[in-house]
Amino acid sequence: MDLVIDGRWIYYPLSGEVINNGRIVIEEKKIIYSGPRGKESDKKAGHEYYNFEKGLVIPGLINAHTHIPMTLQRGISENKSLQTWLQHIWSIEPNLLPEDAYWGTMLGIAEMLAGGTIGFNDQYFYSDQIARAIHETGIKAVLAPSIFFAGNPESNSMEEAFKHAKNVHDKWNGNNNRLYVAFGPHAPYTVGKEWFQTIANEARDRGTNIHTHLNETEYEVNESQKTHSLRPIEWMDKIGVLETINSAAHCVHLSQAERDLLKKYRVNVLHCPKSNAKIGTGIADTPRLLKENINVCLATDGQASNNKLDMFEEMSFEALIHKAVYKDPTVVTSTEVVRMATCNAQTLFPKNCYSGTLLENTRADLTVLDLDSPGTTPVIDPVSHLCYAIGREQVVMTIIDGSIVYQNGKFLTLDITKVKNEAQRVTNRLLETTSSD
Amino acid sequence: MDLVIDGRWIYYPLSGEVINNGRIVIEEKKIIYSGPRGKESDKKAGHEYYNFEKGLVIPGLINAHTHIPMTLQRGISENKSLQTWLQHIWSIEPNLLPEDAYWGTMLGIAEMLAGGTIGFNDQYFYSDQIARAIHETGIKAVLAPSIFFAGNPESNSMEEAFKHAKNVHDKWNGNNNRLYVAFGPHAPYTVGKEWFQTIANEARDRGTNIHTHLNETEYEVNESQKTHSLRPIEWMDKIGVLETINSAAHCVHLSQAERDLLKKYRVNVLHCPKSNAKIGTGIADTPRLLKENINVCLATDGQASNNKLDMFEEMSFEALIHKAVYKDPTVVTSTEVVRMATCNAQTLFPKNCYSGTLLENTRADLTVLDLDSPGTTPVIDPVSHLCYAIGREQVVMTIIDGSIVYQNGKFLTLDITKVKNEAQRVTNRLLETTSSD
Repeated sequence: MDLVIDGRWIYYPLSGEVINNGRIVIEEKKIIYSGPRGKESDKKAGHEYYNFEKGLVIPGLINAHTHIPMTLQRGISENKSLQTWLQHIWSIEPNLLPEDAYWGTMLGIAEMLAGGTIGFNDQYFYSDQIARAIHETGIKAVLAPSIFFAGNPESNSMEEAFKHAKNVHDKWNGNNNRLYVAFGPHAPYTVGKEWFQTIANEARDRGTNIHTHLNETEYEVNESQKTHSLRPIEWMDKIGVLETINSAAHCVHLSQAERDLLKKYRVNVLHCPKSNAKIGTGIADTPRLLKENINVCLATDGQASNNKLDMFEEMSFEALIHKAVYKDPTVVTSTEVVRMATCNAQTLFPKNCYSGTLLENTRADLTVLDLDSPGTTPVIDPVSHLCYAIGREQVVMTIIDGSIVYQNGKFLTLDITKVKNEAQRVTNRLLETTSSD
Repeated sequence: MDLVIDGRWIYYPLSGEVINNGRIVIEEKKIIYSGPRGKESDKKAGHEYYNFEKGLVIPGLINAHTHIPMTLQRGISENKSLQTWLQHIWSIEPNLLPEDAYWGTMLGIAEMLAGGTIGFNDQYFYSDQIARAIHETGIKAVLAPSIFFAGNPESNSMEEAFKHAKNVHDKWNGNNNRLYVAFGPHAPYTVGKEWFQTIANEARDRGTNIHTHLNETEYEVNESQKTHSLRPIEWMDKIGVLETINSAAHCVHLSQAERDLLKKYRVNVLHCPKSNAKIGTGIADTPRLLKENINVCLATDGQASNNKLDMFEEMSFEALIHKAVYKDPTVVTSTEVVRMATCNAQTLFPKNCYSGTLLENTRADLTVLDLDSPGTTPVIDPVSHLCYAIGREQVVMTIIDGSIVYQNGKFLTLDITKVKNEAQRVTNRLLETTSSD
């Protein structure tokens, strides 16, 4: 179905520009016109037409680092130390069945679609089940099957995990031109040199890349220095794998040498401000990263450490926390923050899969927000609202590759009642199984 | 109308307890039963009955520090330094008409009621208009007419502002047993010794108290030390007014001596974490305040520096920011945070006006949240959801003094379409007037 979307405001994060009374015309999954509204007669015959009188149209958002089936563990272990929390999580995960991961993923996708998020970048096990949910729901994603075995019910060894990952790549990479597969060695402190190199070689051979966790805690940085006499990112460079790492989650504790390496190899930093805060790992200095021209993408992390897949609240938190720490309201702007959730995420995907720009001749991924709420009245500056005042409940339409997947509380590609019921049932079973262990 | 409210969960923040399948019975503005659900035949004849199958019932929230008509300036000056921001605000406020303040207040009240907030503690001018909106909408409040004249269109002198404040007290204090009036000398750096003492004496004589701003910025603390050789709170003590200060907004930069004074005089600290972050004034160390047994209440501050009146997002932000700064997930718990938005605010109001406990024989102020959303499924721990996962859009019922004021998107005490239209109209005029100056 081809579409014409008229919005009261259209926001282009790449330029930072907002236009009034704009129009987007979509044909064959692409935006073919984006700009000021023309004469009424310009509306194309046969196109489905939507006019949002107080609508703000933005690029569909990308959640750059998730462990999507962890929706099932939301709220399981709160206000605890990282070690207690990890023990709790790792005691539950071995009881997870493939079907559970499917329902956990469906639940997470529902939450994202309703919140204007049109794609995600994941690292978890049971990727085959995750891929199935992505295929069915129409969302866009890069999956990096986790290669690691703490808490992993799918594999008893690195060999097995690696084999699973290759199978997932064989089966799903390129599916519908919106699902891609990378490799996910968990982190330098859990995956040794030889395995990291083997995985990197495989990724290179297959024309894909690596999604890993780097420098999340001070502890792991200190351990790396003890073990390798190098910090983790220096170690990744030394063993020749850094150039294959496209997605580096967290990067909270960095040296200047490490920042220089991230820049040199154009590594995308996946920044999870709320999760880093909640677990108490510290505050990644993204204003400095941006200043040094390192690409930063915004993310929620898994649901056991957030507990929302809400990119609007993540944007607001990111806009505020650095102002608090720097004691400087100018240190990060609304536009910079919105870019972290949109066009900065372009480089996570293969070429032309996602732009996050709303420019012509790009894939039609967009989100419409209704600003007609008490909390977004009056409208003085729609970009300020986007960053500081809006809530995800104001999303009225989510479009991926030109298809409407969510509209006014209705999910067009999934049965939300069934998804919620199955997710609650699966979690009940997981909790029972774990406590009776 | 007497009510029976059955909820799947009822949360009592004072004890931290959650009960399953609970019931609250309301008669004559009071909770007369609160506890486990009894037999169906216990439901009282003639009472209106509501059953929330996935409902979490909590005490209605209090927003402990607002400048309510500033809703009209939401988003006006973003990512700017404090000085630029203040200049912008102070250039607009002189153009505010009394009727504008009324519409700005109505808009803010609508946002609060829809967000489960049943009361607020305000400091602004045009209090007569604010009081009118409170009277009409059924919300609970303590108003402290601001005694100060930067940007104040109502008064040209301290004399005039003081006179206005006394008139507001005469006219509105005790109205409906839910609207009370205090005095609002703006801050020690804007109101001199004699005026502060005069206001404090008047407050004492009338059996009310003072709501002021204390130690928000490092700058004002340094200025106080230069001028008085004392920090602001020490200065307030020295001139004999600290014992009349019930509400001290911000308290970001405190010495041990000042914390001891806050404790000695049982001053309520009104903590505005998001506003403090956004303006870059720093991060108030509330974990330390709580440890030292100082009462902390949570607040949004005015809309030009937040830009939400959303106590759920404020709770989430408060729960996260100290964990980030302390690098310790145990430093503040969900229960402590919810208390800051509920029962800790009891001491802002006259005796028996608000309890925030849901206990029997207290005023019936409550909020019901529907946890049946993708983002709050599964339910493992409803208190974790309350603090970390819920959004204000999940509020399905808000009850003040036993009256339903908001239900499923409908406002029962105001015309939301008119309020939004008038607020937008007034803001348009304010912006035009200001730019043509």
